[in-house]
Amino acid sequence: MILITNPDRTQWTELLKRPVMNTENLFDTVRGIIDCVKAEGDCAVLRYEEQFDKVALGALTVTEEEQKEAEALVSEELKKAIRLAKQNIETFHAAQCFEGKRIETQPGVTCWQKAVAIEKVGLYIPGGTAPLFSTVLMLAVPAKIAGCKEIVLCTPPGKDGKVHPAVLFAAKVAGVNRIFKAGGVQAIAAMAYGTESIPKVYKIFGPGNQYVTAAKQLVSLRDVAIDMPAGPSEVEVLADETANPAFVAADLLSQAEHGVDSQAMLITTSSALQQAVKEEVERQLALLPRKEIAEKSLANSKLIVVRDMDEAIELTNSYAPEHLIIETAEYMSVAERIVNAGSVFLGSLTPESAGDYASGTNHTLPTNGYAKAYSGVSLDSFIRKITFQEIKPEGIRTIGPAIEEMAANEFLNAHKNAVTVRLAELKLKNDIL
Amino acid sequence: MILITNPDRTQWTELLKRPVMNTENLFDTVRGIIDCVKAEGDCAVLRYEEQFDKVALGALTVTEEEQKEAEALVSEELKKAIRLAKQNIETFHAAQCFEGKRIETQPGVTCWQKAVAIEKVGLYIPGGTAPLFSTVLMLAVPAKIAGCKEIVLCTPPGKDGKVHPAVLFAAKVAGVNRIFKAGGVQAIAAMAYGTESIPKVYKIFGPGNQYVTAAKQLVSLRDVAIDMPAGPSEVEVLADETANPAFVAADLLSQAEHGVDSQAMLITTSSALQQAVKEEVERQLALLPRKEIAEKSLANSKLIVVRDMDEAIELTNSYAPEHLIIETAEYMSVAERIVNAGSVFLGSLTPESAGDYASGTNHTLPTNGYAKAYSGVSLDSFIRKITFQEIKPEGIRTIGPAIEEMAANEFLNAHKNAVTVRLAELKLKNDIL
Repeated sequence: MILITNPDRTQWTELLKRPVMNTENLFDTVRGIIDCVKAEGDCAVLRYEEQFDKVALGALTVTEEEQKEAEALVSEELKKAIRLAKQNIETFHAAQCFEGKRIETQPGVTCWQKAVAIEKVGLYIPGGTAPLFSTVLMLAVPAKIAGCKEIVLCTPPGKDGKVHPAVLFAAKVAGVNRIFKAGGVQAIAAMAYGTESIPKVYKIFGPGNQYVTAAKQLVSLRDVAIDMPAGPSEVEVLADETANPAFVAADLLSQAEHGVDSQAMLITTSSALQQAVKEEVERQLALLPRKEIAEKSLANSKLIVVRDMDEAIELTNSYAPEHLIIETAEYMSVAERIVNAGSVFLGSLTPESAGDYASGTNHTLPTNGYAKAYSGVSLDSFIRKITFQEIKPEGIRTIGPAIEEMAANEFLNAHKNAVTVRLAELKLKNDIL
Repeated sequence: MILITNPDRTQWTELLKRPVMNTENLFDTVRGIIDCVKAEGDCAVLRYEEQFDKVALGALTVTEEEQKEAEALVSEELKKAIRLAKQNIETFHAAQCFEGKRIETQPGVTCWQKAVAIEKVGLYIPGGTAPLFSTVLMLAVPAKIAGCKEIVLCTPPGKDGKVHPAVLFAAKVAGVNRIFKAGGVQAIAAMAYGTESIPKVYKIFGPGNQYVTAAKQLVSLRDVAIDMPAGPSEVEVLADETANPAFVAADLLSQAEHGVDSQAMLITTSSALQQAVKEEVERQLALLPRKEIAEKSLANSKLIVVRDMDEAIELTNSYAPEHLIIETAEYMSVAERIVNAGSVFLGSLTPESAGDYASGTNHTLPTNGYAKAYSGVSLDSFIRKITFQEIKPEGIRTIGPAIEEMAANEFLNAHKNAVTVRLAELKLKNDIL
């Protein structure tokens, strides 16, 4: 950990630097795989599964039997936990349902928005060391609430050709329609273009390594939407002297264990806290199974003391953390002033883990400073708002001349004429009456 | 125009094909320009202005004097029209303000979303044959309502080094903070990375040619968000035998005059209407100043007769038009069944021009079938929804064990521990009491 005290404002940019990701370097490799899947479908996906996931599959589709088998393998405790989490995620996301208002912008001119679900969505769940069944819930539950008709999930199987039972159980609980054994670039390509087994979708969600990220970026250039750009996960704890050093240390470590490129940062007004957190991190670290990963990412971790709360807030807004934990005496007034963050955790009893798993908020969030421009995944991510408008005679008479004037000044006479023919017809009808 | 009657379902894909855009071919050229602007700032922008816009500028910033001069040059009629349009756009977008609800997902677990404006946004307004002051309103008005602090606008100057007065007037009316004379790739790069004159922004909006589109795509891979992917503009008219052929023809032509790659399509249940529209289009076309452009795009325009309204709606949802005009007897019940479209215009007195200019809805919409996954620009485009959560002792006691169980099963023990330390502390306090 790097301890910093009262950094000068000129150092901020350097201080807040994140590891640079350059997925563009992978574009050529990734494009090759995408093109093969586009051309050869299932056959290519199966070949890449053998090559990259070291598994020879007979079929890509997860069967009913495999689903049932999986359910029997998940412990009752975990099932109960998954169901509780699902319920809270459902409660929070269902409350986000959008009701458009009908607005009469002028007498006779009525405009409104209507939320409509994206018909087909694809969820990607990575394999690797941790079975991310929590991410299944975070993506499939809002998709279901939104009313997406087809919710497809791709995830790489283990070397035994099976998908982790908890992933299958969570998918079932959350309402996923179909699950396929496919990982990496080949999974993204399959969902973007469709294969014999895997349907084409309109939007792809979910985390992944740099190859998955590059594939999502490439297909999003023309063919399918994606949730948001990806980057390594990160947390900032903003704390004053009232914070509990053991809690802060535990929160920093829970980020650090994610991966060696994870970022964990403390910004505090208290030198005593900085020191105490440092000691607590070292103490707790020694007990962690993923100690080696956490140790590496902690090497870049910064514990920063600033002059006062104003500076702490300003530095935080400059950083725009994915996760922000505010553990200060007056955390509500601090929260009011946060303008750049993905998800904010308030008070000493609200760890990031709560939002990662079970409080109800979504854990798919903008990293890498993207919080300055992007929101996390929410119900909005699974809908579109279509605008509608209806104009009555009174309305077109009021706004028609303005449209004609503007269209003529943009040299778009056919645009003008679309109004002119209507006003003429109305006048004709009026004259007859 | 191509007249088609009762196409077989197997022909649909072919029928709905759009011109393929491949901006990726331009990436190398565009990346070169971006890199120069990133490295050399204003100096590079000025050089490219000379090279591409054929204008030697002393400075990029539009001055107060230029603003005033422009205001004097805009006619009172146009000013009045712009003010009316601005007012309607404001009314409709202000009604979209988001109020997050506080949701108690479990007793003691409170979660909510808060809308926060993107602090810095950049608007790009192309030059070329038409001065798109209407687009200035469509982007700047919602940015202002959202509360964006810095609203920057870039637009290429004419060969006289000046920006079109109506663009400057609309920018002033809408509340743009700063305007710069810069076009094309150099403008996008300047807003993405910042130069001495042009501030870096977090999200870039606005239309442009294929180079601008490629530049927006490239900078969005890592550095800045963009509004949505771009494509040629398009309209579909969905009509039955009650539609007015002169209105339908005028609407198709108002799309066709945009550019040679514009798409205008009629889907109807009436052969008589198909024939009448064809004749009306030919009649009205002869009178248009932009006849040559419209003629070229009409060559690919399709007038399709289908078997019944069900098929018409299904074909429409497959096409996912940017603009959809529904001119049928029962247009409201048809509208209910539209799930893929950008903006929908209802009834015979609601031309696309109304939404293009002055009814209040936004005209920045998803083209190229993107309406299946994207919404048009709205107030949402200028905000982020940050999630907040606050957990009380009762809450962490309820959901804590589920978090511990899930974290342990994802092999993330530090995540588990962040809850364990808190539950232990609560227990300790309880035991003492």
